Amino acid sequence: MALRFITAEEAAEFVHHNDNVGFSGFTPAGNPKVVPAAIAKRAIAEHEKGNPFKIGMFTGASTGARLDGVLAQADAVKFRTPYQSNKDLRNLINNGSTSYFDLHLSTLAQDLRYGFYGKVDVAIIEVADVTEDGKILPTTGVGILPTICRLADRIIVELNDKHPKEIMGMHDLCEPLDPPARRELPVYTPSDRIGKPYVQVDPAKIVGVVRTSEPNDESDFAPLDPVTQAIGDNVAAFLVSEMKAGRIPKDFLPLQSGVGNVANAVLGALGDNPDIPAFNMYTEVIQDAVIALMKKGRIKFASGCSLSVSRSVIQDIYANLDFFKDKILLRPQEYSNNPEIVRRLGVITINTALEADIFGNINSTHVSGTRMMNGIGGSGDFTRNSYVSIFTTPSVMKDGKISSFVPMVAHHDHSEHSVKVIISEWGVADLRGKNPRERAHEIIDKCVHPDYRSLLRQYLELGVKGQTPQNLDCCFAFHQELAKSGDMRNVRWEDYMK
Amino acid sequence: MALRFITAEEAAEFVHHNDNVGFSGFTPAGNPKVVPAAIAKRAIAEHEKGNPFKIGMFTGASTGARLDGVLAQADAVKFRTPYQSNKDLRNLINNGSTSYFDLHLSTLAQDLRYGFYGKVDVAIIEVADVTEDGKILPTTGVGILPTICRLADRIIVELNDKHPKEIMGMHDLCEPLDPPARRELPVYTPSDRIGKPYVQVDPAKIVGVVRTSEPNDESDFAPLDPVTQAIGDNVAAFLVSEMKAGRIPKDFLPLQSGVGNVANAVLGALGDNPDIPAFNMYTEVIQDAVIALMKKGRIKFASGCSLSVSRSVIQDIYANLDFFKDKILLRPQEYSNNPEIVRRLGVITINTALEADIFGNINSTHVSGTRMMNGIGGSGDFTRNSYVSIFTTPSVMKDGKISSFVPMVAHHDHSEHSVKVIISEWGVADLRGKNPRERAHEIIDKCVHPDYRSLLRQYLELGVKGQTPQNLDCCFAFHQELAKSGDMRNVRWEDYMK
Repeated sequence: MALRFITAEEAAEFVHHNDNVGFSGFTPAGNPKVVPAAIAKRAIAEHEKGNPFKIGMFTGASTGARLDGVLAQADAVKFRTPYQSNKDLRNLINNGSTSYFDLHLSTLAQDLRYGFYGKVDVAIIEVADVTEDGKILPTTGVGILPTICRLADRIIVELNDKHPKEIMGMHDLCEPLDPPARRELPVYTPSDRIGKPYVQVDPAKIVGVVRTSEPNDESDFAPLDPVTQAIGDNVAAFLVSEMKAGRIPKDFLPLQSGVGNVANAVLGALGDNPDIPAFNMYTEVIQDAVIALMKKGRIKFASGCSLSVSRSVIQDIYANLDFFKDKILLRPQEYSNNPEIVRRLGVITINTALEADIFGNINSTHVSGTRMMNGIGGSGDFTRNSYVSIFTTPSVMKDGKISSFVPMVAHHDHSEHSVKVIISEWGVADLRGKNPRERAHEIIDKCVHPDYRSLLRQYLELGVKGQTPQNLDCCFAFHQELAKSGDMRNVRWEDYMK
Repeated sequence: MALRFITAEEAAEFVHHNDNVGFSGFTPAGNPKVVPAAIAKRAIAEHEKGNPFKIGMFTGASTGARLDGVLAQADAVKFRTPYQSNKDLRNLINNGSTSYFDLHLSTLAQDLRYGFYGKVDVAIIEVADVTEDGKILPTTGVGILPTICRLADRIIVELNDKHPKEIMGMHDLCEPLDPPARRELPVYTPSDRIGKPYVQVDPAKIVGVVRTSEPNDESDFAPLDPVTQAIGDNVAAFLVSEMKAGRIPKDFLPLQSGVGNVANAVLGALGDNPDIPAFNMYTEVIQDAVIALMKKGRIKFASGCSLSVSRSVIQDIYANLDFFKDKILLRPQEYSNNPEIVRRLGVITINTALEADIFGNINSTHVSGTRMMNGIGGSGDFTRNSYVSIFTTPSVMKDGKISSFVPMVAHHDHSEHSVKVIISEWGVADLRGKNPRERAHEIIDKCVHPDYRSLLRQYLELGVKGQTPQNLDCCFAFHQELAKSGDMRNVRWEDYMK
C-alpha cells in the first residue's frame, strides 16, 4: 500500500474532539512536532466558533513545548497521563482546567491494553523511517509507541529527516503478552536484545505521513556548582565504600540515574573515580553525561527509553554511528522501567527528591503537598526494585529559606520501605537496617543543613511515643512557616503545639 | 554424619548474646516452638546475673506467642525485622526497647545475601524431616528458610512430628542467584515447580536436632458480620463487572488475599458467586477459607508461603493428602511475593487498609501515624505489581467514632500511584484514570460512612488550589479530634484553620 503524504493540517483533521490520542516519545525526544501544532490551531478555531475541542493525551513521559506546550496554550487537553513537565500544561493542571493522573511509567502500556483508560483512537508518532508494509523506525524516544500503534484505530506518522535511517539497530522493540499468557522478559544484561529493530504496524491504519525536519527541543542544564559537585562526589564515595565492603560486586552493577543537573554531577563523579570500573547503564533517559563517559570508555553500554541529549551531542552520535550503534539501545518504557528486569539486573538507582523527611520518606511530585510539579515518573519503578536505592537532594533551597529535609513530607511518593540511602552535599545517610528514630538521627547528622539540625533534633524530642515519633500538630510546621514568614528557619515548635 | 539429638536447653547454648538469628516460618506456621522458649529462659537467667542477652531476629513474617512472645517477654530482642504481630513484642517496639525495621517481605532474603543487615549467626528451623546428609523438609511455613540455612554458621533443627513426612512434595524450594548472575524466576502459572521439594543444607552446620510435637498456634477469627459480608459481596460484584466489561480475562486471574476476617469474607463471597469461575491463588498465606473452597472445587490451586489454618483444618489436610497434595504449594517468600512473578501472572490483589485517605493513599502500619501495628508485610510486593490492586476496609470503627477514611493518612504505605480500587461495606471506589479531586468524590460517594460524607466534602471546599487540595492546617483534624474528644465526627474545620 503506497504511503499517503499529507500536510500537518490535513493530519490534524483525523483527530476529533474527545479522541484519546497516544504520542510517541519520552522527554523532549522522539515526540511528534508539527501535527500537535496543527491540532492546536484546529482547537483554537473550533473554540472561536463556540465548539468544544479537547483531546485525551497518553505519552511516554514529559514531551516539550511543541507537544504539551502548544496543546496546553490552546486549552485542548481533556486529560493527561502519565508525566509532564511543561509550564503551561502544569498551570492548567494546577488550576483544575486539565485532569492529570500521575502513574508509574512502566505500567501505562499494560493498563492501556487491559482497557483501564478507554480506547486509543489515534496514535501520532515520530519516525526516522516508515515503509509501505508498515515497518516503523522510531527516533530518539520510544515511550509507549509499540502499544499505541497496535491499539489505535488510526496512525499519523511524522517522518523526520533529522534522524538518519542508519540508526536502524539502535532500538529493541517488542510488547509482552498479557496475563495469563505472559512469559519472562528475557533481558539478563543491559545489552540483551529481545525484540526487533523496528515496529510492525498494520499499514492500513496509517492515514498519512507528514514530512518534517525538526530537531528535538533541548533541555537546559545549569553548569555544575559546588553543591551538585559535592552530591556527585558523595554518591561516588558511597558506592566505592560499598564495593570495598563487598556489598556491591567487584564488576559493579548497572546504574539508573534520573534526569537533571544533580544526575549529571553524579555521573561525572562516577566517571572520574578510578575505583569504579567502567560500567553499564540500565536507565530511562540517556543524557549528555552518559555520552561523554562513553567516549572516555567509562560507560560501556547504555540501555534506555530515550536519548535525550543536546543538539551538538546528537550530531556527534549520528556522525559516529559506527562507534555508538553497539553501545546504545532504546526500548519501550515497559521494558526500560520493568520491575522484573530492574530487580534481576540488580540496578543501583539514583533519583532526585523534591523533599525528604527525617524518617526516610520522599516527596517527588507535589510542592507543599498541593501543587503538582511533574509526576512520579519512573522513580517508583526503579527505586522499589533496586539493588540499593539512592535519593539525592541539595540540603536547602532559596538561600537556605527552604530545607529539603522536613519532619513529614507533604506528599508521599516513596515510603521508608523502599528508600535505602539519602545523599546531600553534606554527606550520606545509610538507612538500611535502621528504625525510624535511628534513621532520623542519621539523616540529621549526615544530610541536613547545619542551620536546621537543632530544629529537627528538637522535633524528635517533643515527647511523642511509638515507633515513629511524628507529632501531628507540628509535622507540617516547616511548610506552614514557609507560607507565613517565607523562611523555615523561623519555626518555633511551641507555636505549633496544640 | 549422624544427627545429634539434643534438648531445647542444649540447643539454646548455641545461641549467644548479640547473635543474629534467622527463624523459619511465616505467620504462626512453621516457626520453631521449643528452642525459643529455652533461649528466653537463658536470657532471663543471664539478665538476673546482670549480663546482657539479646539477639537480632530475622523471620519470614509474624510468628506467634511461642517465638516472638516468649522472647519479647524475656526482653531478649535486640532488633526485629521484617514483620510482627505479637502484643508483647509490639509494646517493646513502641516503647523503644526493641529496634524494629519494617520491610517489604520479598526483599529480606536478598538483602541478607547482599550483606545489608550483617551476618546470620544461627538458623533455627522447624522441619517435618531431616536426613543425615542435610535434606530438610519444612513444615507449614517456609519464609526465609533456604537463605538462612545457607548463610548461617550453625543450624538448629526442631523436628516436629505433628507434620507427617508424607508432605514431601508440597513445597517448591529454591534460591535465585544474585545479580549480575540472576536469571528469570520461571513460574508461569501458580502451580509451576521450579525448585526441589526439600532444602539441601551443609550437614556439618547442623549442631543439633530437637524432637518436638507441638501444633502451630491458631489465629482467632471472628464470625462473619454484616459489614465484612457486605465488603466481600462488593469485591465479588466488582470483579464480576470487570469480567463482563472484558477488563479481566474470562478464565479469571490468580488472586492474592491478605489475612483476617475481611479476607475470609471476600474469599467466601468469591466462592459463592456463580459468575466467577473456579480460580487459582498466588498468595502469601493460605487460610481456612481457601481450603474450604478447594473442597468445593471453587479453588483449583493455591500457591503460598504459609499454610496458616486452624488445627481441625490441618488435620483434615493431613488425613486427605491424596486430595490436597497436588493443589497446594509452599514457596520461600522471595518467590511467593516476587514482583516479577506477580506482575507476569497478573495477580488480582486484595489487601486490608488500616486507614485510607480520600485521595487514594493507604496506611497499613501506624495507628495515628506513630504506633506500629504490625508492618507492611507483603502488601507492597503484591499491590505495586498487581493486575488490579484492591484495598478493603470497614468504613468506620469503634461505633462510628473513627472513620477509616480521612483527609490525609497519618502514615503512608501505599501511594495513590499503586492503589486502584478501594472497597468498603458501602460500595466500590474505582480510582483508575481519575485525578485526585475526582478520586476524592468517588471515595466519599461510594465508600465513606454517611456520617462523614459532608465533613469530607467540606474539606475539599476549604479553598486550596492545586492538583491535590490538601490543607496542611487541617489534614490531620480527624486524628487530632479523636485524641481530643474521642469522636472524629466532632471535627469543625474552622477550629483547625490557621
